Amino acid sequence: MTVHLVGAGPGAPDLISVRAARLLGQADVVLHDRLARPLLALAPASAEVVDVGKAPGAAPVPQEEINRLLVEYGRRHRCVVRLKGGDPFVFARGSEEAAALMAAGIDFSVVPGISSVLAAPVAGGSPLTHRGLARSFTVITGHAGPADWPPGFAEALATIGGTIVVVMGAASIGRIASRLVEVGLVPQTPVLGVRAATGDAEEVRRATLATVGELGLGSPSVFVIGDVAGLDLRSIAPPAPEFGG
Amino acid sequence: MTVHLVGAGPGAPDLISVRAARLLGQADVVLHDRLARPLLALAPASAEVVDVGKAPGAAPVPQEEINRLLVEYGRRHRCVVRLKGGDPFVFARGSEEAAALMAAGIDFSVVPGISSVLAAPVAGGSPLTHRGLARSFTVITGHAGPADWPPGFAEALATIGGTIVVVMGAASIGRIASRLVEVGLVPQTPVLGVRAATGDAEEVRRATLATVGELGLGSPSVFVIGDVAGLDLRSIAPPAPEFGG
Repeated sequence: MTVHLVGAGPGAPDLISVRAARLLGQADVVLHDRLARPLLALAPASAEVVDVGKAPGAAPVPQEEINRLLVEYGRRHRCVVRLKGGDPFVFARGSEEAAALMAAGIDFSVVPGISSVLAAPVAGGSPLTHRGLARSFTVITGHAGPADWPPGFAEALATIGGTIVVVMGAASIGRIASRLVEVGLVPQTPVLGVRAATGDAEEVRRATLATVGELGLGSPSVFVIGDVAGLDLRSIAPPAPEFGG
Repeated sequence: MTVHLVGAGPGAPDLISVRAARLLGQADVVLHDRLARPLLALAPASAEVVDVGKAPGAAPVPQEEINRLLVEYGRRHRCVVRLKGGDPFVFARGSEEAAALMAAGIDFSVVPGISSVLAAPVAGGSPLTHRGLARSFTVITGHAGPADWPPGFAEALATIGGTIVVVMGAASIGRIASRLVEVGLVPQTPVLGVRAATGDAEEVRRATLATVGELGLGSPSVFVIGDVAGLDLRSIAPPAPEFGG
């Protein structure tokens, strides 16, 4: 009689945690997002699978309905897994689900996951922090574009001077970039854009604040803004080694 | 002939990724940090294990020496795992190691991990973001105390108004909290402090900006500052269920 709010990681099935994989393998019921779909192969064939994700163009399941389902399944089943892309506590409303379970007296656990905030930089070979380039990073959502930012927000982002990470920004990254240039970031500031980091549909693109609005990356995308995005530390397979050399 | 820069996750051995566990199981050589030690059980008994971590009181292995070792082992062995606590690209100098391998023409991969930035909030039941409480988060290191912050940095942190996460802040959190109050955050702002999140020595404490300096949490600790830290969404096991009820 436990509901596990489980981070599925960024996309690649083997970037889920060992704990999450084990819980999935024991699940009686799995309620999953669209992004977590590749992981369903780890659930038993007998598990009930409930898709509560938003498909493009389809009406999303309201959060209140997901909360209600979690409580209902949690009352009736031994092991319920709520599988969410990334990490449950980073822009994922996992805390609202935890609060609903707590209020209903249902036992639950939260299993962290590799957020795309961490995976996208790795996919593009750009660290979030690097000595001499960035010693902090700020993560914002692109759902709220600059028109919704509180007074001084853009200026503060520029003043902090660290890496800026925009999640869910496919639609608004152009406006965000323009606003950051207005408040003083140089137009040549490097930007790394990664769609579907580590998943089958991964796309990695490089741009600047001046050009990122034209990239046209679709959802789900993460943008890494700052000098670190000028680093491209991805392996280039070396020439065949000379053994004994 | 590949060096894998692998995130070991936050501490609990089963919060490593499936990919990282598999690579560890194939390793000929493992170079590890102190925080990654609990994961060494996953390496083959035949693997050469090199401790390059800092033990308290001992002289640390200089980063340049670690880079040199990675290149040297990478030239001689089929599968070298550089195992780092957390995530290699978040305050971990993994990007310096990647750059050294790239410069030497050694094939490498980077495997993201669950950073303590993600695990500490889960351990304390406080999300990093929550509707109506925080829609961004900024991660800073406590290695540089407020005396080292550039002009306007503290004010910008306060203006952004999102969650502030301090890693490696056990020694400086009191000074950081005082500075944030000076620039306008209210002294009653909640703070979650988590030492060794998800590991055997985990400690979870709650405080405010006014009191966190007295907490006395040792290293390694993560502090989560902001309204989200006032949420404590950890499961309280419900009364034994009445079956059939």
